[in-house]
Amino acid sequence: MSTKGNKKKEKEGQKKEVPKYDRAGLENVMKRRFFVVPAFEIYNGVAGLYDYGPTGCALKNHIEQFWREHFILEENLLEISGTCLTPEIVLKTSGHVDKFTDYAVKDVKTGQCFRADKLIKEWVDKEKKKKKVSEARVKELEELATKVDNYEEKEIDEAIEKYKIKSPDTGNELSKSYQFNLMFETQIGPTGGFRGFLRPETAQGHFVNFKNLLNFNSNRIPFGSASIGLGFRNEIAPRSGLLRVREFTMAEIEYFVDPQHKEHKKFHTLKDLKLPLWSAKNQLSNGPIETDMTLGEAVEKKIIDNETLGYFLGKTYLFLTGIGIRKDGIRFRQHTPKEMAHYASDCWDAEIETSYGWVECAGHADRTCFDLSHHTEASGVELVASRLLKETKVIKGVKLLPNKGSIFKDFKDNKEKAKKLCEKLDRTSEADKEKYMQEYEKTGKIEVDVDGEKFVLDKEKNEIKMERFEQNVHEEKYYPNVIEPSFGIGRIVYCVMEHCFKVREKDARRTYFDFPPAVAPYKASILPLIENEEFLKFVEPIRKVLVQNGVSYKIDEADSIGRRYARTDEIGVPFGITIDDITLKDNTVTLREIDTMKQIRVPIDEVGTIIKNVCNRTEKWEDIVKKYPAFEQAKKEEK
Amino acid sequence: MSTKGNKKKEKEGQKKEVPKYDRAGLENVMKRRFFVVPAFEIYNGVAGLYDYGPTGCALKNHIEQFWREHFILEENLLEISGTCLTPEIVLKTSGHVDKFTDYAVKDVKTGQCFRADKLIKEWVDKEKKKKKVSEARVKELEELATKVDNYEEKEIDEAIEKYKIKSPDTGNELSKSYQFNLMFETQIGPTGGFRGFLRPETAQGHFVNFKNLLNFNSNRIPFGSASIGLGFRNEIAPRSGLLRVREFTMAEIEYFVDPQHKEHKKFHTLKDLKLPLWSAKNQLSNGPIETDMTLGEAVEKKIIDNETLGYFLGKTYLFLTGIGIRKDGIRFRQHTPKEMAHYASDCWDAEIETSYGWVECAGHADRTCFDLSHHTEASGVELVASRLLKETKVIKGVKLLPNKGSIFKDFKDNKEKAKKLCEKLDRTSEADKEKYMQEYEKTGKIEVDVDGEKFVLDKEKNEIKMERFEQNVHEEKYYPNVIEPSFGIGRIVYCVMEHCFKVREKDARRTYFDFPPAVAPYKASILPLIENEEFLKFVEPIRKVLVQNGVSYKIDEADSIGRRYARTDEIGVPFGITIDDITLKDNTVTLREIDTMKQIRVPIDEVGTIIKNVCNRTEKWEDIVKKYPAFEQAKKEEK
Repeated sequence: MSTKGNKKKEKEGQKKEVPKYDRAGLENVMKRRFFVVPAFEIYNGVAGLYDYGPTGCALKNHIEQFWREHFILEENLLEISGTCLTPEIVLKTSGHVDKFTDYAVKDVKTGQCFRADKLIKEWVDKEKKKKKVSEARVKELEELATKVDNYEEKEIDEAIEKYKIKSPDTGNELSKSYQFNLMFETQIGPTGGFRGFLRPETAQGHFVNFKNLLNFNSNRIPFGSASIGLGFRNEIAPRSGLLRVREFTMAEIEYFVDPQHKEHKKFHTLKDLKLPLWSAKNQLSNGPIETDMTLGEAVEKKIIDNETLGYFLGKTYLFLTGIGIRKDGIRFRQHTPKEMAHYASDCWDAEIETSYGWVECAGHADRTCFDLSHHTEASGVELVASRLLKETKVIKGVKLLPNKGSIFKDFKDNKEKAKKLCEKLDRTSEADKEKYMQEYEKTGKIEVDVDGEKFVLDKEKNEIKMERFEQNVHEEKYYPNVIEPSFGIGRIVYCVMEHCFKVREKDARRTYFDFPPAVAPYKASILPLIENEEFLKFVEPIRKVLVQNGVSYKIDEADSIGRRYARTDEIGVPFGITIDDITLKDNTVTLREIDTMKQIRVPIDEVGTIIKNVCNRTEKWEDIVKKYPAFEQAKKEEK
Repeated sequence: MSTKGNKKKEKEGQKKEVPKYDRAGLENVMKRRFFVVPAFEIYNGVAGLYDYGPTGCALKNHIEQFWREHFILEENLLEISGTCLTPEIVLKTSGHVDKFTDYAVKDVKTGQCFRADKLIKEWVDKEKKKKKVSEARVKELEELATKVDNYEEKEIDEAIEKYKIKSPDTGNELSKSYQFNLMFETQIGPTGGFRGFLRPETAQGHFVNFKNLLNFNSNRIPFGSASIGLGFRNEIAPRSGLLRVREFTMAEIEYFVDPQHKEHKKFHTLKDLKLPLWSAKNQLSNGPIETDMTLGEAVEKKIIDNETLGYFLGKTYLFLTGIGIRKDGIRFRQHTPKEMAHYASDCWDAEIETSYGWVECAGHADRTCFDLSHHTEASGVELVASRLLKETKVIKGVKLLPNKGSIFKDFKDNKEKAKKLCEKLDRTSEADKEKYMQEYEKTGKIEVDVDGEKFVLDKEKNEIKMERFEQNVHEEKYYPNVIEPSFGIGRIVYCVMEHCFKVREKDARRTYFDFPPAVAPYKASILPLIENEEFLKFVEPIRKVLVQNGVSYKIDEADSIGRRYARTDEIGVPFGITIDDITLKDNTVTLREIDTMKQIRVPIDEVGTIIKNVCNRTEKWEDIVKKYPAFEQAKKEEK
């Protein structure tokens, strides 16, 4: 996930005209039917933390499972699962300790904190709306609002002083701005001396395991690893509901490629797909979003840098439309150079249109070799792959052969240092070897500095031997590049809810979700027409058939059948199974589909398989309808 | 999960004679084939943190999926997903801030930390092994080792002083002992004033959502909620590999029952099941583990307190044996009163035999109404259910009716206090209402204390009105009791690996896992006999058939077929699909099963369905073997 920039564009999105999403209506259903609720609400909640109830949790699970099949199974990725707790060294190396920050300011009296850029922008919005604001003033304010994204401490402080910006709720003075790191910090172990963080992304867990992954893949490149897991981000002042939270599920792929071969062997399967592409160039020149260009053309014209990146943009498009996002509610926006994360050379966000504007839901960054090379440097473990050379190369070099037995004997009074000395020799760079060699050729000795103390190693004393050599080399090492498709699952869940939230034409109070059956929270409802033993005794055999087929269900026994349909519609149950008078006679039930409200008559034995097949996308409802008798009585039940 | 006691019993288990599990062999495979590795190993790792590689992650996912189907789907539980980040108030109320602790001591010079009880026990073990230790001394030492489990600071310090126990590695002095809280602490938000913890269990997320859950379940009791998610525990000095870690996946059920009705409507389906039960009574009297008693008898004899608890013990047994734990490697051990967690009235652990001894893998605690009643008190939100009374009850009470409009008007100089006053009135207890009423009946006034300041509310001034009333009541409120089956998924994954780790009879170097197909990491391998285009072209159609059926696979193209079988055996791939000469002619492949090594000949079209059905447990391999021709050539490939 990108660390910067996305916030800016989301904000911009809010100014655009968007279709009328019924956010209030949706939020009402979300809360009332326990999709998602603020966490710890009985204690007044904690901003940016949310709990998923049975409906939301099932929806989220199914979206994750869809992702797993669409990416991990179909692309044969290596799924791994790392820890959230991460030692400081890892995130120092990745750049997050220094750069994963926002600027904050405090109300000097109440201590309330604000994100500096948001505070200034909101102040600008208010100022502009005041009476009698000159045109020049408006222009100046707008310039401020644009520039503030790139401000550092000093410029923020100057702006706050110049414009006399105060704490918005109290009018109190504001503190100087300061960088606030967005990672949650903790101590690992009891000593109090081992600093750790909750990971801001799963990605680092892939990189530190690169050697294990490469080995597992028989040392072949390219390959991809994948993780579904939690990420954490200590937002300064989270708002925007589920779109900006402090704890969230991410699904990330790190696809390792040879930088000289960014082709993808399955690219041809997606090359004719047309995605709405908004390049950085077009954004900066007020150019359009390309909607009529195939992935093949886009890669050929270098609008998208390479096949692998293009392939994953296509896969993401198919994923999002597969789980219920409207095709016209997706666009792919390239990052402009300024908003790029510190580790990335290119990035395309999949953005989804919502009532909040266009929202980044998946990033596709080319992280180059930033992480693997930095971790190699910091850990001393080479995170590289190797490729065969077209022509054999002769390389010249120097061998440094310490005799560790002699060294430990000769420095036995200082074993700790001797150990460090040997470690240092093991890690000598090629340049240093050449320097030592020149000394050695002259004197038969070399002098090594260990933490400021000099050690002389002597050929005569059998402590060291050095040789020059020439070698034929058939392969060369290199840092793989990393293409990273990274998905914010919580945001996607919310977007799916907004896009699938519908109202019955004839009754605006009757809302429903037309989730694709694959992701719907519950697949079926079991509805005995009358709540007495004659009808109820069919519940258990139906339940069994569903469980056998892995179909989740909800039993609803109370109220009229119309009300019960309304209730199950409200949480998006795609199939209603009604036990009625005819069931008592011939063991068939009615099966009703939510979006068309069509009903058919099917034997109990077959109802599990039908629903399973539609959910697995091996059969279509349209085809099933043709196979079974329609049940017309339904019409009067729906009004 | 229990917070105390389990450690003790595990330790005891280690002294028992156990079958020879090949732990070294298993650990070698685990690491080499990337099941599980120490996390951040390139930076020398962090104790108690582990990463799951592709094999381990898939195994873990499948075990979780099995759990989800076995419990959530079959029992129609409400799955929810709460946050790991938890505000202090919640864990203060649950008792974890005060009681989720171990005693620690430090090496005064190096600062190394030890768990006090473990340190003393290990010292005892060493002392006992010294030469010329008198019998009396041995007895004294053993008593110390037994008692130390219940020691508090003072007694630990006295023991360390009395026996002159030193830091084991350095011989340095030890610090005084201190309570160390096992929760990871962090700050939520930027102010530095909002203390939070990483949850030690998912359970609290269920309790704080109780009202939402009850409402979702149409206010009916009993019902169960379930969560699969992370738990954290900042162990002082974690060892024992995967059995004691700092970050782990838990699967927890909170089953809410009316304390007057702990029957379970499906108990009859499991009542004839026989589980090995080790009651607290038998443990304390050196009695046996009952192995020949049905669940029905055990509940009848009150060895197991009630049907609901008994039902879940049975379900757990079926779960564990279903995922590959040997029947004779499971026992259910009741907690003795001393080891019970602070919130529990009864607890049965499912323990699994391993190379480390018997290990607690699932707890089944009766948490009574501890959590719901404490959260009700602390939050002021009633977490209760209600039941119909058999007979209507008349209750007498007092109504306290403040006129808030008048109050705010009359105390307009002190609005903050007026607000507090009104809040206090809203929360007046029945006892206090009676006191106020007596005052009111005498004087027409009441005096209310708000933070030490007295406020007089006067009937005359229209500030307050009070009435006595009688009411017919048809239902009464009560705190549901909670039966909690709680599973440590990481421990269970490890135990499954130990129990399924096998060696080929004819070749001790050839190890394999006979995982049940449902949980095996990869379900199938695709093995072209020869690595050339003629054979390789069949890989893609086979792959497609597998993906369509949701069957995970691994493609292995290099080496002899024998070696490739060995390699896929090593990671427990149950089915090998070989593309051979006959495939080229008739589109059939050989399908080999790992445990029997039997091979059959099946059409490519059918191979996906066969494997899927065996994995889903809708068909058995024994039956499939009868339907297809055997392939005899296989025999020579296996030695």
